[in-house]
Amino acid sequence: MRGKLIAASLGPGDAGLITRKAWQVLESDALWCYPVRRKGGRSHALGIVTRTELAMPDDIVELVFPMTHDGQVLARAWARAAEKIVPVLQAGRDVVLLVEGDASTFSTFTYLSRYVQQLDADVVVETIAGVPSFNAAAASTSMPLAETDDTVGIVPAGYGLDELDALLPHFDTLVLLKVKPLLDSVIDWLDKRGLLAQAVFVEKAGAPEERIVHDVALLKGEKVNYLSLMLVRNPNRVRGEVMRGCKKKDV
Amino acid sequence: MRGKLIAASLGPGDAGLITRKAWQVLESDALWCYPVRRKGGRSHALGIVTRTELAMPDDIVELVFPMTHDGQVLARAWARAAEKIVPVLQAGRDVVLLVEGDASTFSTFTYLSRYVQQLDADVVVETIAGVPSFNAAAASTSMPLAETDDTVGIVPAGYGLDELDALLPHFDTLVLLKVKPLLDSVIDWLDKRGLLAQAVFVEKAGAPEERIVHDVALLKGEKVNYLSLMLVRNPNRVRGEVMRGCKKKDV
Repeated sequence: MRGKLIAASLGPGDAGLITRKAWQVLESDALWCYPVRRKGGRSHALGIVTRTELAMPDDIVELVFPMTHDGQVLARAWARAAEKIVPVLQAGRDVVLLVEGDASTFSTFTYLSRYVQQLDADVVVETIAGVPSFNAAAASTSMPLAETDDTVGIVPAGYGLDELDALLPHFDTLVLLKVKPLLDSVIDWLDKRGLLAQAVFVEKAGAPEERIVHDVALLKGEKVNYLSLMLVRNPNRVRGEVMRGCKKKDV
Repeated sequence: MRGKLIAASLGPGDAGLITRKAWQVLESDALWCYPVRRKGGRSHALGIVTRTELAMPDDIVELVFPMTHDGQVLARAWARAAEKIVPVLQAGRDVVLLVEGDASTFSTFTYLSRYVQQLDADVVVETIAGVPSFNAAAASTSMPLAETDDTVGIVPAGYGLDELDALLPHFDTLVLLKVKPLLDSVIDWLDKRGLLAQAVFVEKAGAPEERIVHDVALLKGEKVNYLSLMLVRNPNRVRGEVMRGCKKKDV
């Protein structure tokens, strides 16, 4: 019997946002793996668990996923990680990957699980869903992500202001991820579109160091953390009629 | 000292997806409130808790939020709920609203908290973030919601196919909510856009009765549950360049 490969989503940083299911896996005898950017580096995911009363197992395994967009370097890293994991699974022990946030949302778990299943197609993979950082940001700021019939667009800000202009008429909420490299431009854009008062900035959402800035204009010129997002509500969206209810109709 | 009004997000249905923080509040002596559509009706949120080992308190309070889009009827319902809650808070006891999914995502908690704070501006409101249904759907289907630099659009399907056509070029993933009333039309649309194989249908995501259908074309003509969504991956999106990294640049 092979062990199972489990992605335990731990939420964005607050150890209280770990689900009971993820907690149970952490308490089991599954081998813990945690991602780092470089050998011996800090792991945000492991950091979440160290803020709990759980004892650190003696045999935790570090998996190096370099911070690069070079596909070949990444492929080698995933293959190496898969080679570490598969023998453990084949020996019958479960392996749990500690994942910050939600494993289906901007995590590398999908890639890793593909490489593992390439090495051994019989490995069963289980993903335990978790709280994404932008839901934690919405909770902390008391700004709804979505109310009835609302639309939500989640986009890395790096696609630029023309893209934001194209999306704006379609969305009640925009979640702008990784705003750091164009923070000043985004602030100017919000100002021009009359949305400054509808935006909130959140650094390290859900983590102990979380910082919330409601008056985002104050951030102009500031160097913010890489893990920064903005929630933008768009009260001016012109809505089409929405087809609701339980009756099937032709459109 | 007033009590706190707490929204405890319970996740989409699997009691294992309740966070430790929400669990702690449920174990405290806070007064439980749960939403129903009509007096004495079933509460999905309460149902999640009944599937745990927690004992049901004797004094739980039902709050009626009718399933209507009539603003006046809803306003009366929220006002009535707020009138039930505020005296408890003013007597110094915490009140916890049981919320299915995530309290910031398509829940009525935002409305309720506004009415409570209208009656008593000094009430402190706390939102505990939870796992949204579409993250649970992604985990169950092993379909990523977002990989590196991806964009995600979350839209009620009821806005129609023209709206989907307008959004498609901008998104790597579309989450189509409440697909029931136009299920057949959406299936035809997916077929025309070459996306049938990239879509998955999930009924009651994250709940014990969850149903996953990978071959969505099989659903044509079927009457599905109201709580149904589709995840659609769009591998053909033409991406602009994304500005990344930590250096600030002008755009």
